[in-house]
Amino acid sequence: MCELFGMSANVPTDICFSFAGLMRRGGGATGPHGDGWGIVFYEGKGCRAFHDPHPSARSEIARFIRSYPIKSCIVICHIRRANRGAVSLANTHPFTRELWGRSWSFAHNGQLRGIKKRPLAQFRPIGTTDSEHAFCWMLGRLRERWQEAPSEKRLLAALAELCTELAGNGVFNMLLSDGRALYCHCSTNLVWLTRRSPFGHATLLDEDLAVDFATETTPSDIVTVVATRPLTRDEHWTVIPRRSLIGFRDGVEIHHRAL
Amino acid sequence: MCELFGMSANVPTDICFSFAGLMRRGGGATGPHGDGWGIVFYEGKGCRAFHDPHPSARSEIARFIRSYPIKSCIVICHIRRANRGAVSLANTHPFTRELWGRSWSFAHNGQLRGIKKRPLAQFRPIGTTDSEHAFCWMLGRLRERWQEAPSEKRLLAALAELCTELAGNGVFNMLLSDGRALYCHCSTNLVWLTRRSPFGHATLLDEDLAVDFATETTPSDIVTVVATRPLTRDEHWTVIPRRSLIGFRDGVEIHHRAL
Repeated sequence: MCELFGMSANVPTDICFSFAGLMRRGGGATGPHGDGWGIVFYEGKGCRAFHDPHPSARSEIARFIRSYPIKSCIVICHIRRANRGAVSLANTHPFTRELWGRSWSFAHNGQLRGIKKRPLAQFRPIGTTDSEHAFCWMLGRLRERWQEAPSEKRLLAALAELCTELAGNGVFNMLLSDGRALYCHCSTNLVWLTRRSPFGHATLLDEDLAVDFATETTPSDIVTVVATRPLTRDEHWTVIPRRSLIGFRDGVEIHHRAL
Repeated sequence: MCELFGMSANVPTDICFSFAGLMRRGGGATGPHGDGWGIVFYEGKGCRAFHDPHPSARSEIARFIRSYPIKSCIVICHIRRANRGAVSLANTHPFTRELWGRSWSFAHNGQLRGIKKRPLAQFRPIGTTDSEHAFCWMLGRLRERWQEAPSEKRLLAALAELCTELAGNGVFNMLLSDGRALYCHCSTNLVWLTRRSPFGHATLLDEDLAVDFATETTPSDIVTVVATRPLTRDEHWTVIPRRSLIGFRDGVEIHHRAL
């Protein structure tokens, strides 16, 4: 199974701490996910993406990101264990497409049987994964429905519908963002927590590293992180119920719909 | 004026040598282009993009790329001097969109008066530059004409037409690629050279750095580089005639159309 990680915050925040633990799970250190990894950092409407088909635990790019604190309000990261589609750059999540003048990024874990029978319209996969096909299908359906971006309420309702349809093909744990909100759909495994004042300590599960968030933040900071499995041993992680879609904006939950 | 750089090669090749000179032109070292830079490396159908709104001469990401030899058959790089659109990540070239299941990348220098009056269809700008508007317009026109990728001959003819139209709005020096071919349109400044056996020496214009390509290559390597201005002092650079579109595939010229 792949590992997903997402962040939504109300101030540009670096993810160096979480990233340190997460990257250990990619190939040889503490996890079996040796088939590459990728990460997207939003900065306003722009985003920076880094993709590497090599195991994250031994990746030069991962080492660079770990040491270079890119600050962002929305991050999506994925560590891959290939089950469909060869190991290559084109098959490395997150996938990105422009829709309604915004950059949409998507990362998925799970298998989707028969997904490639779903017909595509405007968006086409570049690689060969089921995941990218599902992403292209979902964005294509949104685009068919609206030429311009709809209200958040309508968008959430449509995403909930489309996620339910996709979950009919198998396991659909997903992180999706347009740079404003972070949408999370859980089929099987997804947990989250919000860090806010008063900030405490946290210790990584995968590496002997602790942080005192109180020294790194201001009292108004709100930072929510989402992951396949808890990343720390001394914080309270909330399990996202199965078949649920949750959205976060500026670190705050905007929607929780049991499907 | 911005600086463009492109490469087309028949074997995965790193651009560390050219990059060293090029990055000196971005902010403070040997050029006036302090408004960010970006680069795309293709690897099969996938691509890696790095964007930085900070001056390249002082960029951490540039330092990383300079030391980490990413090998690729097609590269597009752009160092920006903003004349339209704020300095931000979303306004940093190269821009990328998926069309016909391939990742298309685009970098431009020049100004295009009134370009934003050209109506857009499928593709929308994420940032506010004239350049991204032109790119979206061009891809939208191609997509309107063909649902699936046309033959290379038809594509080249269409690109030549569209480049001529865009050059009607002002200065349109452009590099464009779908990961297979590198297309170069010259309005005012664009030069190129091909390095092939027997390989010689080259010395950068912008930095005291020389390379002996004979020690870095095999006899079958063919590497073509395109730039706004010559990067080396001891090689023969060919000027691309004004109002011309040239394509390269595997380092070899595939087309030269005076418009």
